[in-house]
Amino acid sequence: MEKLIIAAAICGAEVTKKQNPAVPYTVEEIVREAKSAYDAGASVIHLHVREDDGTPTQSKDRFQVCVDAIRKECPDAIIQPSTGGAVGMTDLERLQSTEIVPTPEFATLDCGTCNFGGDDIFVNTDNTIFNFAKIMQERGIKPELEVFDKGMIDTALKADKKGLLEHPMHFDFVLGVQMTATIRDLLFMVESLPAGSTWTATGLGKNAWHIAAATISLGGHVRVGFEDNLYMEKGVLAESNGQMVAKVVEIAKLLGREVANPTEAREILGMKQK
Amino acid sequence: MEKLIIAAAICGAEVTKKQNPAVPYTVEEIVREAKSAYDAGASVIHLHVREDDGTPTQSKDRFQVCVDAIRKECPDAIIQPSTGGAVGMTDLERLQSTEIVPTPEFATLDCGTCNFGGDDIFVNTDNTIFNFAKIMQERGIKPELEVFDKGMIDTALKADKKGLLEHPMHFDFVLGVQMTATIRDLLFMVESLPAGSTWTATGLGKNAWHIAAATISLGGHVRVGFEDNLYMEKGVLAESNGQMVAKVVEIAKLLGREVANPTEAREILGMKQK
Amino acid sequence: MEKLIIAAAICGAEVTKKQNPAVPYTVEEIVREAKSAYDAGASVIHLHVREDDGTPTQSKDRFQVCVDAIRKECPDAIIQPSTGGAVGMTDLERLQSTEIVPTPEFATLDCGTCNFGGDDIFVNTDNTIFNFAKIMQERGIKPELEVFDKGMIDTALKADKKGLLEHPMHFDFVLGVQMTATIRDLLFMVESLPAGSTWTATGLGKNAWHIAAATISLGGHVRVGFEDNLYMEKGVLAESNGQMVAKVVEIAKLLGREVANPTEAREILGMKQK
Amino acid sequence: MEKLIIAAAICGAEVTKKQNPAVPYTVEEIVREAKSAYDAGASVIHLHVREDDGTPTQSKDRFQVCVDAIRKECPDAIIQPSTGGAVGMTDLERLQSTEIVPTPEFATLDCGTCNFGGDDIFVNTDNTIFNFAKIMQERGIKPELEVFDKGMIDTALKADKKGLLEHPMHFDFVLGVQMTATIRDLLFMVESLPAGSTWTATGLGKNAWHIAAATISLGGHVRVGFEDNLYMEKGVLAESNGQMVAKVVEIAKLLGREVANPTEAREILGMKQK
Ligand SMILES: [Mg+2]
Ligand SMILES: [Mg+2]
Ligand SMILES: [Zn+2]
Ligand SMILES: [Zn+2]
Ligand SMILES: [Zn+2]
Ligand SMILES: [Zn+2]
Repeated sequence: MEKLIIAAAICGAEVTKKQNPAVPYTVEEIVREAKSAYDAGASVIHLHVREDDGTPTQSKDRFQVCVDAIRKECPDAIIQPSTGGAVGMTDLERLQSTEIVPTPEFATLDCGTCNFGGDDIFVNTDNTIFNFAKIMQERGIKPELEVFDKGMIDTALKADKKGLLEHPMHFDFVLGVQMTATIRDLLFMVESLPAGSTWTATGLGKNAWHIAAATISLGGHVRVGFEDNLYMEKGVLAESNGQMVAKVVEIAKLLGREVANPTEAREILGMKQK
Repeated sequence: MEKLIIAAAICGAEVTKKQNPAVPYTVEEIVREAKSAYDAGASVIHLHVREDDGTPTQSKDRFQVCVDAIRKECPDAIIQPSTGGAVGMTDLERLQSTEIVPTPEFATLDCGTCNFGGDDIFVNTDNTIFNFAKIMQERGIKPELEVFDKGMIDTALKADKKGLLEHPMHFDFVLGVQMTATIRDLLFMVESLPAGSTWTATGLGKNAWHIAAATISLGGHVRVGFEDNLYMEKGVLAESNGQMVAKVVEIAKLLGREVANPTEAREILGMKQK
Repeated sequence: MEKLIIAAAICGAEVTKKQNPAVPYTVEEIVREAKSAYDAGASVIHLHVREDDGTPTQSKDRFQVCVDAIRKECPDAIIQPSTGGAVGMTDLERLQSTEIVPTPEFATLDCGTCNFGGDDIFVNTDNTIFNFAKIMQERGIKPELEVFDKGMIDTALKADKKGLLEHPMHFDFVLGVQMTATIRDLLFMVESLPAGSTWTATGLGKNAWHIAAATISLGGHVRVGFEDNLYMEKGVLAESNGQMVAKVVEIAKLLGREVANPTEAREILGMKQK
Repeated sequence: MEKLIIAAAICGAEVTKKQNPAVPYTVEEIVREAKSAYDAGASVIHLHVREDDGTPTQSKDRFQVCVDAIRKECPDAIIQPSTGGAVGMTDLERLQSTEIVPTPEFATLDCGTCNFGGDDIFVNTDNTIFNFAKIMQERGIKPELEVFDKGMIDTALKADKKGLLEHPMHFDFVLGVQMTATIRDLLFMVESLPAGSTWTATGLGKNAWHIAAATISLGGHVRVGFEDNLYMEKGVLAESNGQMVAKVVEIAKLLGREVANPTEAREILGMKQK
């Protein structure tokens, strides 16, 4: 089995210091969390950024500063800016994270519209999806196809039919938002992918560890971090993203799977080496 | 195996006479199509209504007139107004179809938000879903839980946990809009339902007949009609909803399943007899 | 979707004239049934033979006589002798059906051991399976890998790893003997096959038609006939194998799938044209 | 989620000291291994016994001596003798393990016939299965329904239809003998069980840990031990059954599932307390 890529979703757009004081807002905090994850074994840093007061932002400048600062501490990490941003942002706002210099090698691409609780909707119309795919293709950015439900895979495959995606495609299953986060859901998603695709999975909240373990056994890759889960176990807050990455490394060791470094991760994902 | 309920989706909100001249707009046409379906074996009429020029409407008056007119020709049919309406309508507009006299015994309840192509989104926030469920519960209307993707089942189950749904629940899988319309998708959906639930399925376009046949074998119920499919076979337009219902009856006969009349359908669905 | 291959299992080793008087024993009866199936649309004749009193036999002479006689009436049919024979036969007895002249182009290869009711066991040890595969490979006979349960696919794949099978492989799911005959079982089996494999399915008894319809939708091929089922519908005995094949043709027509002739079937199966 | 029952398959009938010197043959060794597993967290001891030279036996006397000796060291453990024995034993030989005093509370019941490599067949005809079920029912022994392939669940359900099994039923999935040992296989098996059933799973060889982790997440129970696997990880022989049980406990802790003691295990399995 291929080595395991661990992606750390260190920040997210919605979790707050109130929920867990280790959630990073400032540039220094972002770097601290990225480094803790990187040191523990993460090869990919999935990145959202915030204003110093915690407000989510897709500001190009903020992304530039954060990425540059992370790069100093984690020289070969694969930094993957989010283009999802937060509920209510426009497409143009969201795309700013891909405009930094140098152009990111990897970025997320959300493949559908779904509810985010209450009156909130995370909007990604078909046109948005196809446009984002086209722009990333033009800029040479590998998209991580984020899917929250089965139909979003089907939408990604429509984009692929239009020639907007390079192969092999890479998917990310974010489970527990729209579709629940069970092993049954995960397996159905995995078996819905075209042959040759790679994939990462994450389960929200308490399902994070179940999804991580099953993903390790199934040959996928694991995303973990504050964006998706704030606890090490019931009632025990995580002290850092690195602590969470270390737990994934521990599960992988018990299940006999080695962890990939960034060079190996780029190879597995079919990306150019830096 | 239980008898087969056939639901005829005779009109929809989006198909037009340009695509198939038999699509009904006027009251007379609506009645003609309802009666053709009923005579062929449909026990449920899933109903959208239109202005005479084809514009979709959720007008209470138009629903009242159409339902009264159908009732004369199909005295015991289960008439199921849509509360989905068409893209862009407000919740209050959409709920008008449930305000007719007497109160409908059955109505659809869409369980999630998803893309409808281009820039269109079919919006059903969590709040909308829970509100619609509550209102139907208060009015004694059985909801048909319309789901376009797996996560929408999970959302329906959240409404159920809040006590907003009566048991047994009834689901409708609309396949080919968000999630694709394969037997694999269908089976996954069926196996995601709580024990004791009943369900209907429909596949858009050319998949209609595959989904119908598999549904008959799996013990579910079939929805068919112009809302979902305009063709009898490749290149051959359906002349009426009744012709489509007759084809489902024919498949059911070949597969050894009897067709339910409205009295039997009410019993299978756990509804009061009229 | 590829055209549909219909394989007629016209005789079997266990059904009797007592159960259905149309079950063939004599050479004339075998030919009559083969021809009825062929005329109705079968391109493959799956063949067991009997003594005149109905006793199952793997006699090389009897196979030779029957195949020659069928060949006269169905000149281009793909004739597929069974190497399964009947419970209790030795491997050497069973292999006689492959020793006729000319060598058959196609023959069954049972991929596991399982119960056949009461104290009966249908014995195919791993050694038997690997030996049969090797012999068929040497003789240039394409094996139809008969599997009655999931694990038998896994055993076939072990034979494949040993280099004993040519690609693409062709499987036959015989459902309702060991594993039940549900669409869920069928789908699991289909999804367990290596990419590029072709497959046929049959469901025993009353499940024959459900399995046939789902197989047509799933892109597989259908086996039907007295070996597996004696009834057209509940309580109505089939008058001939041809009547059963005709019913499969009718279902295929309703589901929009065309039926393959023997030339097309050979192409789909990757076999040389005669 | 219910607490996790860990069953230790400490000995088996086929593994040898040559493969792993810690495999127990003598009474003292059997007790040593049972105690190591019990101390580490196993509540069930799945028991085969051997002659002092390692030859598998179903001797009533040997079972009596071993069970009595284990009972002294592990007073409340659930001791579950095998009725599978080894390939080639007669039914009467195999049943001896259930004739000890006091009558065992739990014993295995193999639900089908399948290949065991080479020319070997593990024989359990339908008649054997139904007879074993009846005898256990009469003696008040709870059967663990051992299944190696999907169809064996279906056979168990036939025994259930005959009234030969008490509810809730308990199954054991032995994966990697007939059916492969993947999470996909495991999930299919789990979803094939009647509602209310409990289940244990084990994966042979290197798949043991993957199956254990997925089983913990899925709410099943884990079997582990020398019968199924001799290694802690690639190239590292296990020193004792207890070491393997401890690894399962460690995985369970990481996945947030507590381990059941024998009293809790009896309650979960619907067995009378001792
Ligand atoms: Mg969705
Ligand atoms: Mg078997
Ligand atoms: Zn994100
Ligand atoms: Zn509708
Ligand atoms: Zn046969
Ligand atoms: Zn055992």
